[in-house]
Amino acid sequence: MLKIAKLFILSILFISCSNNKDSVDVTDSGNHPNLILTSQAVSEIKSQLGAIPIFDETLALAKEEVDAAIEKGIDVPMPKDMAGGYTHTQHKLNYANMQKAGVLFQLLEDEKYAIFVRDMLLEYAKIFPTFDTHPEPRSYATGKFFWQCLNDSNWLVYTSQAYDCIYDWLPKDQTEYLNKNLFRPYADFLSVKNPKYFNRVHNHSTWGNVAVGMIGLVMDDEELINRSLYGLDKGDVDLNEKDNDGGFIYDKEGKAGFLANVDSPFSPDGFYTEGPYYQRYAMYPFLIFAEALENKKPDLKIFEYKDGVLIKAVDALLNLTDADGEFFPLNDGQKGMSYYTSSLVSAVDIAYYYGSQDARLLSVAKNQGTVQLDATGLKVAQDLNANKEQPFVKESMMLSDGSKGDEGGIGILRYNNQEETLALVYKYAAQGLSHGHYDKLSFSLYENGDEVLQDYGLSRFVNVEQKNGGGYLKENKTYAKHTIAHNTVVQNGVSHYKYDFETGSKNHPEQFIFDASDKSFQIVSAKEKNAYPGSEMHRTLIMIKDDAIEKPFIVDIFNLQANAKNQYDLPFHYFGQIIATSFEYSVPKSLSTLGDKYGYNHIWKEGNGTANAESIQFTWLDNRRFYTLTSATDKKDEIILARVGANDPKFNLRKDPSVIIRKNNTQNTTFASIIESHGTYNPVKEVAANAYSNFSKIEVISSDEDYTAIKIVFKNGREKNLILANKDSNQTTAHNFKLEDKNVNWKGVYYYK
Amino acid sequence: MLKIAKLFILSILFISCSNNKDSVDVTDSGNHPNLILTSQAVSEIKSQLGAIPIFDETLALAKEEVDAAIEKGIDVPMPKDMAGGYTHTQHKLNYANMQKAGVLFQLLEDEKYAIFVRDMLLEYAKIFPTFDTHPEPRSYATGKFFWQCLNDSNWLVYTSQAYDCIYDWLPKDQTEYLNKNLFRPYADFLSVKNPKYFNRVHNHSTWGNVAVGMIGLVMDDEELINRSLYGLDKGDVDLNEKDNDGGFIYDKEGKAGFLANVDSPFSPDGFYTEGPYYQRYAMYPFLIFAEALENKKPDLKIFEYKDGVLIKAVDALLNLTDADGEFFPLNDGQKGMSYYTSSLVSAVDIAYYYGSQDARLLSVAKNQGTVQLDATGLKVAQDLNANKEQPFVKESMMLSDGSKGDEGGIGILRYNNQEETLALVYKYAAQGLSHGHYDKLSFSLYENGDEVLQDYGLSRFVNVEQKNGGGYLKENKTYAKHTIAHNTVVQNGVSHYKYDFETGSKNHPEQFIFDASDKSFQIVSAKEKNAYPGSEMHRTLIMIKDDAIEKPFIVDIFNLQANAKNQYDLPFHYFGQIIATSFEYSVPKSLSTLGDKYGYNHIWKEGNGTANAESIQFTWLDNRRFYTLTSATDKKDEIILARVGANDPKFNLRKDPSVIIRKNNTQNTTFASIIESHGTYNPVKEVAANAYSNFSKIEVISSDEDYTAIKIVFKNGREKNLILANKDSNQTTAHNFKLEDKNVNWKGVYYYK
Repeated sequence: MLKIAKLFILSILFISCSNNKDSVDVTDSGNHPNLILTSQAVSEIKSQLGAIPIFDETLALAKEEVDAAIEKGIDVPMPKDMAGGYTHTQHKLNYANMQKAGVLFQLLEDEKYAIFVRDMLLEYAKIFPTFDTHPEPRSYATGKFFWQCLNDSNWLVYTSQAYDCIYDWLPKDQTEYLNKNLFRPYADFLSVKNPKYFNRVHNHSTWGNVAVGMIGLVMDDEELINRSLYGLDKGDVDLNEKDNDGGFIYDKEGKAGFLANVDSPFSPDGFYTEGPYYQRYAMYPFLIFAEALENKKPDLKIFEYKDGVLIKAVDALLNLTDADGEFFPLNDGQKGMSYYTSSLVSAVDIAYYYGSQDARLLSVAKNQGTVQLDATGLKVAQDLNANKEQPFVKESMMLSDGSKGDEGGIGILRYNNQEETLALVYKYAAQGLSHGHYDKLSFSLYENGDEVLQDYGLSRFVNVEQKNGGGYLKENKTYAKHTIAHNTVVQNGVSHYKYDFETGSKNHPEQFIFDASDKSFQIVSAKEKNAYPGSEMHRTLIMIKDDAIEKPFIVDIFNLQANAKNQYDLPFHYFGQIIATSFEYSVPKSLSTLGDKYGYNHIWKEGNGTANAESIQFTWLDNRRFYTLTSATDKKDEIILARVGANDPKFNLRKDPSVIIRKNNTQNTTFASIIESHGTYNPVKEVAANAYSNFSKIEVISSDEDYTAIKIVFKNGREKNLILANKDSNQTTAHNFKLEDKNVNWKGVYYYK
Repeated sequence: MLKIAKLFILSILFISCSNNKDSVDVTDSGNHPNLILTSQAVSEIKSQLGAIPIFDETLALAKEEVDAAIEKGIDVPMPKDMAGGYTHTQHKLNYANMQKAGVLFQLLEDEKYAIFVRDMLLEYAKIFPTFDTHPEPRSYATGKFFWQCLNDSNWLVYTSQAYDCIYDWLPKDQTEYLNKNLFRPYADFLSVKNPKYFNRVHNHSTWGNVAVGMIGLVMDDEELINRSLYGLDKGDVDLNEKDNDGGFIYDKEGKAGFLANVDSPFSPDGFYTEGPYYQRYAMYPFLIFAEALENKKPDLKIFEYKDGVLIKAVDALLNLTDADGEFFPLNDGQKGMSYYTSSLVSAVDIAYYYGSQDARLLSVAKNQGTVQLDATGLKVAQDLNANKEQPFVKESMMLSDGSKGDEGGIGILRYNNQEETLALVYKYAAQGLSHGHYDKLSFSLYENGDEVLQDYGLSRFVNVEQKNGGGYLKENKTYAKHTIAHNTVVQNGVSHYKYDFETGSKNHPEQFIFDASDKSFQIVSAKEKNAYPGSEMHRTLIMIKDDAIEKPFIVDIFNLQANAKNQYDLPFHYFGQIIATSFEYSVPKSLSTLGDKYGYNHIWKEGNGTANAESIQFTWLDNRRFYTLTSATDKKDEIILARVGANDPKFNLRKDPSVIIRKNNTQNTTFASIIESHGTYNPVKEVAANAYSNFSKIEVISSDEDYTAIKIVFKNGREKNLILANKDSNQTTAHNFKLEDKNVNWKGVYYYK
């Protein structure tokens, strides 16, 4: 009854606002649009047009873009190019324009937009049956209009929305024609004809599931909807089968489909195991389909699924950004991608609307400056207009990994002092499916929006056609994924898990402690026992704010307990210019590589020396700031000055530097380091302020599997002792330790005084 | 009579505004201040306090700084450190604070500022006689409180102003004491005791001249004033004598002193032969002393000297900046230095006041956000307050070099389209004294505020103590000054003039033409005949705005006519990542240097190949923009991919890349290239727009000493012919040329159709 009443009111409203002579009655018949835009939302939005600036601006921009496309004429080329090439780009433009045109048709009631969508769809329907697949066979799942099914799924996710918007406007014979000749076969192509693509737990497959589900919802095709939600019948599959990008095809438990893709890669905290870059990419299909399901299948209660993980995931993802809103490039991640991307506009709006109307999300939306053109975007725009936003202050936080939250995670320690911010990102997460890197217990450090100690990210120029068609570059596998490309220990020159994906996928670090409750002493610690059989790695990172020092410094304790003597390399991937080193080193007359495999083959050895002291210092200048690494050493430790770029015949790699501390022929040992941002250089005033470290040294007093005792000596002679309990992470356990003839007692994991 | 009347009015005004109970009557006696601040200016300023925001803000900031210094107490340490070290920095702070305190005393009438200056001067006077020179003997002219006389001169230039402000407030016995025990001996130290420093034509010596002149004016010491203006008696000097930084000590004509330093290094256009970085540094003493002379010796008409060159110099210097106001790093120049530096605040204010009140200067002052605390700054602040500013649009311009303007110059071609700007800086200037680089006919290219093709600049971290005490690094001489560090031709691997300073100083290129009158075809061309005896180099750079292409492209024609076969290297020092090359190349397994001298010893050869075509393309991505170099080649030309960094034991050099086109065993030849900014990469949208060049090739149809004919082929097949007349630069001369069987007639240097 309620529905009928609503529809009646809506049709009245629609007729009343049809004052454009090109306009038509759209939804008398009742059903469509009902996917993302709904008849009710259309009505509400139309009543608000002209009143909510951010919504109006977004709409005006969409209109401008689509009007230009209509002006240019319909162009549906035969598929030919890889990413970045002409046909690829044109098909991308087409689905983006169709989606917007559908919205414009609904909101502005101008038939030209419906005609544009219809005519384009008829072109697609015409050529769809004329060829088998895209001519470039470079993907593990070659697509139709694109070189990979993934992009075809993008097409279908967007185009489904356009189709929904004109569905009722089209004559029935045309929808039947399109359903039969384009959409149903396209959905089948992406699923039954590509089961390895469709039945996977992977961001690609999420797009595939959602594409099939969205068009299923539009066509009311329950078979497609079910296929989308639960996957194809798997029959007798080999769960260990791997695809040509190196990942497992099937989920460990053999599940598939959209719900499996929500279940498995998301931790209960909303962390997506592939990493933020792919989470960002997947958020659109996850949330747009969730919105569609909420509209058409509300009984599914998709936003409550897995304790509301889809909404949590948006919050998690926003927290996985630096001060500029750029995602931490954990695993395969292209730097520069940020929450300004359109998928995050949708995600933020949908999470606001279907979540708890978290006012912090509004400030992100305000930065984004644009909204989704539906009920969720309207609500965000209205609440922004009412100044309801709260700052989105990114606090220190732990995000578990693993579908049950028990496979390690990410620990983020933050310092926020107005515009001055530091963020330490500690990665002790699981493998991350096929996009995972072999970097257990690695970390990266950010100051404001700048990388201080970097994670290399991926080796790829997404959509730059000249670079392997915009796809992954060989160096992603030969360098970027390797352990040495990250700020963590490499044993005997071999990457973690021997760079074996299966081994990596079976294991993960364990969190030891995360405690950010004391802002002057934030600690995160984790252990990894399987990266190198026989060796136990335990890394603790602490962000300490000392009253006498302007900014916090980082203490990094990397404890190794092994059953044999090994070589341990701990690299720090800095940027910029070396200013001073406390150690002597020499530079070679010609450069050779640091090794011949596991990524070492891509690194030039630019210099090396011997520590020859119990503590070394390394100061560099980057972004007009001075940084110093102070590190406890054995006198015989080797220090290597390195740079990426060897064996890079296409110049695909960035020539970034690192300093590597190498311990040779060592069994149990502890790397203890301080990393600090301590000064600035002003090239206009030519003033170097605080160009020297605040510390004179750091010492490992003792370290074993039970306790690690460290001494920190400040430049002015002041000393601090830090003792870590390595076995018991209980913060209430009492400890007693003999520190240089003095008995020290404390409770919990650490003593610092 | 007028003067006496003025003084009377002033004293009335002063008394009337003395309403602070700590205040004292300052200038009843009449003489001081009269150097920079004058009694009249003080009076005018006081009447305006609180009314002119930018002036009040500058004053408040000065007060804050000096109050903090007073709070901290007086600290006049015995000299010990090099630049960047404690005693160096403290003495710098002291003179800056004294200068401000003097102004504050005058404007705020609070005696504590006078006391601060007095007490500090007494400290200086106490220790001045107790030691001979600074303990660090690293300068060719070791100073007193600083390691070099230069910094001591800075001290005296600033402190003279402070002294002037409290002169009449001090008891006569104290001024006599200070004059005798500190200032006169200090002035003598900087001049008669350091004749090689004082009697030179060089920015250092300008500071020395001005230091002596300023204190001379304060003490009314005519001997010092004359010494300052005309130099020391030179006696029987060897004009070819060189100092240990490699420059000549004496001016070619044997002149010395302040006026010689205006005469000789400034061209009639106001270009300063050492380059913008040093011009920026010297502008303060030049203009502050000019202001003082105008106040105390108006008959000298210093601002009209050499046809008003000091005012012109400010305009020239502002034009030698990129879109961000950063100076082009021609010769020795540290990147990042900009017109925001305090010496330019003074320069802009003084030029505005004593020049023609050029309203464009006001917009620079507005960006600077601060003014000089005197009559000139007040005037600027008042006129800004009255919204009189006009935009400072930097247009294409030619700046001659040489004291008579006949020693080559700098040609700047610009494109301004709102925020989108290009600037090509062509250097065909003279040697530039001891700070000159060996880069005849080199150029650099800027897009917006970013370097596209760079001039390396200097090798130095100014005031970073860890880097050679903040002084020049060895690599400045072994790399940065060499020809290969610049975008110009190196013959047979030897730098221009065989890297011989005397030869370089005797020669300079000759401008052939500069014509920026046609905004769609701006051309600058110059010849150099002496860099390599027997070889004549003629380079023409053209900025062409074609209607069909969004931004202008650069055509670079480098014509070589030689009497023997040579090797010619033409490097392009780009930044960023190689995206594509049209030529095949290989990369070595280990890196070796490109050569063993003339800077080649600092370059790693990262790859090389053979052009194997008549035209090559090289595309790179930097700052999210795509650039392509299209260059005509002989098939056998070698292409080298290079990177700085070899033989750099202290990591002093930046590891910047270049692509080098090498012609072996070639006599006469012409390098013809197109450089274009053609596309953008957006990492948030992951869209590569216009990632491909607009050109398919460039060809040299024919080239000899008379004519060079070029064909440019656009990607769409369109062709343009460019013919340059190489001998006659007259724009009215008629030419006839047989171009591929077709007779072509035109007038002037170029034909382009």
